[in-house]
Amino acid sequence: MRFPADGSAGPSSAPDGPDGPGVPYGGLRLRCATCGRLHALADLAWRCADCHGPLDVHGFVPAMPNAVELGRRPSTLWRYAEALPVPRPPRITLGEGMTPLIAAPGRPDVLLKADHLMPTGSFKDRGAVLLVALAARLGVPKVLADSSGNAGTAVAAYAARAGLPCEVYVPAATSEGKAAQLRAYGAEVRRVEGTREDTAAAAARAAEEPGTFYASHVHHPFFPHGTKTYVFELWEQLGGRLPGTLVLPAGNGTLVLGARLGCQELLDQRLIDRLPAITAVQAAGCAPLARAAALGGEVPERITAEPTVAEGIAIARPARGSQVLRAVRETGGTFVTVPEDRIVAAHRELARNGLFVEPTSAVCWAALRAGLVPERAVEGDRPFAVVPLCGNGLKAKPPE
Amino acid sequence: MRFPADGSAGPSSAPDGPDGPGVPYGGLRLRCATCGRLHALADLAWRCADCHGPLDVHGFVPAMPNAVELGRRPSTLWRYAEALPVPRPPRITLGEGMTPLIAAPGRPDVLLKADHLMPTGSFKDRGAVLLVALAARLGVPKVLADSSGNAGTAVAAYAARAGLPCEVYVPAATSEGKAAQLRAYGAEVRRVEGTREDTAAAAARAAEEPGTFYASHVHHPFFPHGTKTYVFELWEQLGGRLPGTLVLPAGNGTLVLGARLGCQELLDQRLIDRLPAITAVQAAGCAPLARAAALGGEVPERITAEPTVAEGIAIARPARGSQVLRAVRETGGTFVTVPEDRIVAAHRELARNGLFVEPTSAVCWAALRAGLVPERAVEGDRPFAVVPLCGNGLKAKPPE
Repeated sequence: MRFPADGSAGPSSAPDGPDGPGVPYGGLRLRCATCGRLHALADLAWRCADCHGPLDVHGFVPAMPNAVELGRRPSTLWRYAEALPVPRPPRITLGEGMTPLIAAPGRPDVLLKADHLMPTGSFKDRGAVLLVALAARLGVPKVLADSSGNAGTAVAAYAARAGLPCEVYVPAATSEGKAAQLRAYGAEVRRVEGTREDTAAAAARAAEEPGTFYASHVHHPFFPHGTKTYVFELWEQLGGRLPGTLVLPAGNGTLVLGARLGCQELLDQRLIDRLPAITAVQAAGCAPLARAAALGGEVPERITAEPTVAEGIAIARPARGSQVLRAVRETGGTFVTVPEDRIVAAHRELARNGLFVEPTSAVCWAALRAGLVPERAVEGDRPFAVVPLCGNGLKAKPPE
Repeated sequence: MRFPADGSAGPSSAPDGPDGPGVPYGGLRLRCATCGRLHALADLAWRCADCHGPLDVHGFVPAMPNAVELGRRPSTLWRYAEALPVPRPPRITLGEGMTPLIAAPGRPDVLLKADHLMPTGSFKDRGAVLLVALAARLGVPKVLADSSGNAGTAVAAYAARAGLPCEVYVPAATSEGKAAQLRAYGAEVRRVEGTREDTAAAAARAAEEPGTFYASHVHHPFFPHGTKTYVFELWEQLGGRLPGTLVLPAGNGTLVLGARLGCQELLDQRLIDRLPAITAVQAAGCAPLARAAALGGEVPERITAEPTVAEGIAIARPARGSQVLRAVRETGGTFVTVPEDRIVAAHRELARNGLFVEPTSAVCWAALRAGLVPERAVEGDRPFAVVPLCGNGLKAKPPE
């Protein structure tokens, strides 16, 4: 029995398995951005086995379905199945994607994309569903993640949906509420003393265990192929165009990298004629990328992080920082930083307009309200900028 | 500047104001279901001024847009604008509607509709946006709601979006977390000692103040015209069909009444050829409707409520109970009750499958899992039943 419903049917393309067990689709490999070494998907690599360089997806030609076909498809990110490295909608879908695009308060030239309404409450679902779909198709016995926040929650939920055992490494200071949500999904929570980097290191060590799929939102190259759908949806919702500027948060930069990738794929298919500029936003207290960009550097600056309410992007040493710096530069974009009081005020303004988001989600709106997003001429009736709402406020304390 | 984006553009129909200030669209009135008296929208009536009977919308002919037109519209409930008593998408939209329809765990013949992913985290947004849109167009100085839960949150959020002052009456025992969320939206929280009925009574008294719009999810007849979009979306997502059975929660029965209305409108327009059966679910500890139905009664039974984890439907005296009883009966449907242990187990099972919902949201799944939903033959490849996920689990404590 098949239904034309979200998640239970939809587009299909190349069948699984031409390369035999463990290699679900022909030609697809992971390639080291540093040394060029190729890795089979079945190797479960999340960084280069030789040089520990970052991996990218290799040997994949994405294709955007035409408008008539899109008009027939469910309102999820699986409407773009032919443009995704998972070749058809997985059974594990929770209905992720095609989040609303709504008017911004007091700025008729700006739109807000409501990714806080994703199944687990953040844009991380876009990447997590691809990682877990891959893990499920590879038949791994266990999925592993690290993060006390949105990424860990997203991986745990999709792993639950897939029936895959899941371990999530979190900093010891993680609140009991967040840990309880992870356990509700059936995940094992492993608390790690020390910094957030210590947690990531513990997860990386655990990932060495054979058969473990490290569903890392930072490292695994399938993740940005999920987050790129943010741009595909914008393109479709704006009638086949993109805004002049994409304002995006930058901690590890997983949305920046996905957006950059999505824009490039649209450009390569001649579906847009120029790249939108990316304005990447960091909290002033933790801005290794903004500082590097200001100095013309190609790697993140070493910084001492200060506490910030935007804890979701408080990443002192972003593992793919060089790629994030290059991605923003290539679009003619810029990095900006916002101080705490501006984040708090923006968070409050959003709530007072009916938009209940995490404090981290307010950084992009704060940058825009502070006049930090460079004005850029746009032709026709495109919006000047689109600002994402990344995480649901129900996960955090409400603003005062 | 106009965008073809959710909330900033979309379908438009009759212009406002043919009847002058305070009467935004021609012909529409509210009619008492008991005595037949007509009320103008500008009267701000929420029950009959004479006999206190329930009001229904009168003088409105809904029309479903055709498939080509629907294919062009944003993925929100405003795609059905011509079928709604608010004649075009209001500026206050938060992108509500067209929630995902996903596979149910272990039941290939059942689908889940993910209304917990609505803007404020529950299906109540469907009705609240219509109430507040009406209030905004009538130019009222203040909106009033009662409920410590999803309905109050929804009204407060849309009132914030509309820039309308909002008061929410809540039971004194309401948690500080819920009150804080209401205040984050800028609402005034009024705590009332006593039972939930006492809170409703206090709100009703406050609603007597001239110029106050009582945005009651129970009483105001615009509310079911919002919740009926649940059925419209199902119809469209299933390719122009409805399932054999709609399993729906019943506290005040606001989703039952909306679903019944939506099914009737589809039938009247010959877009379906028979009504799906409604299985209405109550918690065993608070089942005035189920008990009345079992006894063949036409009004809710008087009961003494016991505590239940399904607090969102723990309504001992549902104000529109007679209409809810009739609605279910007219579809050939039935009322069922689920015990606490089944609700807790269903809640846990959903979370273990990546679906993090409120305990109240688990009652329908619990009824299905307990074999309480009558089997009904369905033709073709329609699903046997659709079960709603009504409220986001982030609002409540996670299951253990």
